[in-house]
Amino acid sequence: MPDIDFWYSIGSTYSFLTIMRLDAWCEENSATVTWRPFNVRAVMSEQRNIPFAGKPVKSAYMWRDIQRRASKYHIHARLPAPYPISDLELANQVALLGMSEGWGKGFTQALYRIWFEEGVEAGSEQAISEALFRCQQDPMPVLARARTPRAEAALKAETDTAIRLGIFGAPSFVVGGEVFWGDDRLEDALSWARVGHVV
Amino acid sequence: MPDIDFWYSIGSTYSFLTIMRLDAWCEENSATVTWRPFNVRAVMSEQRNIPFAGKPVKSAYMWRDIQRRASKYHIHARLPAPYPISDLELANQVALLGMSEGWGKGFTQALYRIWFEEGVEAGSEQAISEALFRCQQDPMPVLARARTPRAEAALKAETDTAIRLGIFGAPSFVVGGEVFWGDDRLEDALSWARVGHVV
Repeated sequence: MPDIDFWYSIGSTYSFLTIMRLDAWCEENSATVTWRPFNVRAVMSEQRNIPFAGKPVKSAYMWRDIQRRASKYHIHARLPAPYPISDLELANQVALLGMSEGWGKGFTQALYRIWFEEGVEAGSEQAISEALFRCQQDPMPVLARARTPRAEAALKAETDTAIRLGIFGAPSFVVGGEVFWGDDRLEDALSWARVGHVV
Repeated sequence: MPDIDFWYSIGSTYSFLTIMRLDAWCEENSATVTWRPFNVRAVMSEQRNIPFAGKPVKSAYMWRDIQRRASKYHIHARLPAPYPISDLELANQVALLGMSEGWGKGFTQALYRIWFEEGVEAGSEQAISEALFRCQQDPMPVLARARTPRAEAALKAETDTAIRLGIFGAPSFVVGGEVFWGDDRLEDALSWARVGHVV
């Protein structure tokens, strides 16, 4: 079965659903998914894709829809969470650094809990530090490394790869070059990986 | 079980999937759905919600996603269909007139086939006339009635109702005041109607 890549950005609201349910989902479906943080804000700015800013009706719907689907997946959430987040780059640079060191997924899950359950904005240094602490990482040195030009370049390279793949939003799933956008397309991506079409 | 209202606009691409699969779906699920055409373009302009214009990457994805899901539902389509359509108001005024006279659903289905299978732009008088003909309506008098101030006011009233309900896009399903946006939320709407939450 081809791999499924899970492209997400800390800062994306619907990514919350995937981040919270993906481990159990992988176990249930005997699937392996690679977590790939990128900078969705850079992609969307470039493509003039502004999903919620200045759109109160659509924004209210987004929170309601996330609430309904979180309930469906038995995920706890206190909504609306603070949105948009401030420093999207830093949080995702930390996450990407963590992916190369084995703690990126745990950090992402901890940070989303802090953001969506405890109401602390996920781009803040407070939230990032707390999430690092919760996955047994020393916040100060990690933050220093995540702020280096090397860490910035690494996130930019991943973001460029996402753009080349045709990604325009988060979360997205990519299977053998095929892009599926949205938490609600996770099953479609699995189907594509297994049989090459959506069932 | 509360009723499900299906709010759609001729001109909406994703509405194609619902329009083509809804009859069989209602039969399978013993559900009754009321078809309610409205002017989604007026709603989206007011809310500065521009989903695809000037967004080539997202537009390409949209067609690919519709193609994959059409295949899933065994719906034939020749994509991309001409988009956007020209005269959204007229087509929906005709559809709304037809709803009050019993041929609105058949007209909508015929017009979407002409648009998505035969590649004739759904806002054109040619396509509208052909769809009327295929559902046993005399095109010229119907078009004349659909162009009256009364028909215009009727579509505007439905559109105002949609706005009051919190609708911001098409297709949308409304069950007891709860809005579900997108063909992929049809099952959620049914679940809401049956048990009051999404399962």
